[in-house]
Amino acid sequence: MPRMRLVMEYDGTDFSGWQLQPDRRTVQGAAEAALSTLTGRAVRVHGSGRTDAGVHALGQVAHVDVAEKEVDRVRSGLDRVLPRDVSVLGAGIVAPDFDSRRDAVERLYRYRILRRRRPLLDRWAHVDGRNLDTAAMSRAADHCRGRADWRGMAKEGSGNSSWTCDVRTCLVAEDRLGWTFLISANRFLRGMVRLWAGTLTLVGTHALSAEDVRYILEEGDRSSAGPSLPARGLTLVEVMYPEDREGAVSDDP
Amino acid sequence: MPRMRLVMEYDGTDFSGWQLQPDRRTVQGAAEAALSTLTGRAVRVHGSGRTDAGVHALGQVAHVDVAEKEVDRVRSGLDRVLPRDVSVLGAGIVAPDFDSRRDAVERLYRYRILRRRRPLLDRWAHVDGRNLDTAAMSRAADHCRGRADWRGMAKEGSGNSSWTCDVRTCLVAEDRLGWTFLISANRFLRGMVRLWAGTLTLVGTHALSAEDVRYILEEGDRSSAGPSLPARGLTLVEVMYPEDREGAVSDDP
Repeated sequence: MPRMRLVMEYDGTDFSGWQLQPDRRTVQGAAEAALSTLTGRAVRVHGSGRTDAGVHALGQVAHVDVAEKEVDRVRSGLDRVLPRDVSVLGAGIVAPDFDSRRDAVERLYRYRILRRRRPLLDRWAHVDGRNLDTAAMSRAADHCRGRADWRGMAKEGSGNSSWTCDVRTCLVAEDRLGWTFLISANRFLRGMVRLWAGTLTLVGTHALSAEDVRYILEEGDRSSAGPSLPARGLTLVEVMYPEDREGAVSDDP
Repeated sequence: MPRMRLVMEYDGTDFSGWQLQPDRRTVQGAAEAALSTLTGRAVRVHGSGRTDAGVHALGQVAHVDVAEKEVDRVRSGLDRVLPRDVSVLGAGIVAPDFDSRRDAVERLYRYRILRRRRPLLDRWAHVDGRNLDTAAMSRAADHCRGRADWRGMAKEGSGNSSWTCDVRTCLVAEDRLGWTFLISANRFLRGMVRLWAGTLTLVGTHALSAEDVRYILEEGDRSSAGPSLPARGLTLVEVMYPEDREGAVSDDP
């Protein structure tokens, strides 16, 4: 049975997150329903990771096993049977042992903050009217790069065997409309990006210093970390794989 | 009574257009309700023009008369009492005879077409999966510039005293995601922008030539013009006024 890799974009606003839940509208559920419509059978979709309720994706990755004769139908038809708020941007054959979650080596998230309400951007941005200090937030972001224990900026009871994350990209960019926070790592703990973004905004208002952020990571002191920012501002931008695991995903569906 | 000029952004998706209608959710209605909440009295809001149901705005302009003592409250409080899908980007005092509709000298509209469904852009774009010929559409747009009779690309029964429009900006730009059509004119007829956009896409598929578009304008032959494209792709970008009518709108609310 050929294995296919799907790259998916979704507006998370009206979903209870990625993962299947009974009686809830989820992205995984929508994808599986669409595949069932196409193939006439139950199909399991495996995502690279969960996204929380309200979180968006520009490049979530999933894999799915389909029959040889179903490949073309999935490629050409899947996008058409998905609801308006989910789309398949790419679909291609990968190695039969490709695993969207285990093979992922890096994930990139964006957190978007606007200076003021902008109705046309409302669904995927958080608003903070304060005059955040971009330079201070950038210095704090510098302290977040590298391998570190992130229990200070993760939800308690994440139940992880390890709190260590290797953060590669970590930066703050300011533009006319507001701020974009970017963070990539080999793995993320529960609630980590939204707590990190909330901690950076505390630095932006000088309630915390960049040094305090280093302290939060070094001491694992969750009590000083910032509030968790709303899901609406968060987008999973990209999931990265080793080159030999990429497969032919550039094939348009 | 001081007159204020408001610059408004809205996501038109969930509105039955700008203009007040009984039992319908309209932008004008939302603005008047918000002003009533602030002032404790009925307030009339006068827009620069109607936008149809589902059409968005980045810079709709309106004027409103408020009491001297209400000015500060409107400036600082109006944006907070508006619903999520409407925002006031600017509010300032203008001359007492400023008229947002009559004083407007030019309006700029954008029509956005994407090559494929993009859930995060879905609310304000139309999707056309065909490989539209940008150069041909640009040539057609060139024929639309200048003073002309636009009855060939307006709704019948527009009931206008004149069909003449002076089109200043008229262009087609292609990018990675799709196409942006921009058109500005001193005035627009009913349905004009969406019919114009539909006509350009016919040129993009070679169902019409750029010359045909000139013919449609010269002969006023509505039967050859394109279909009206959906409201979701259309945004009123800006309404322009003579410099001496601008007022102090740069004042943030």
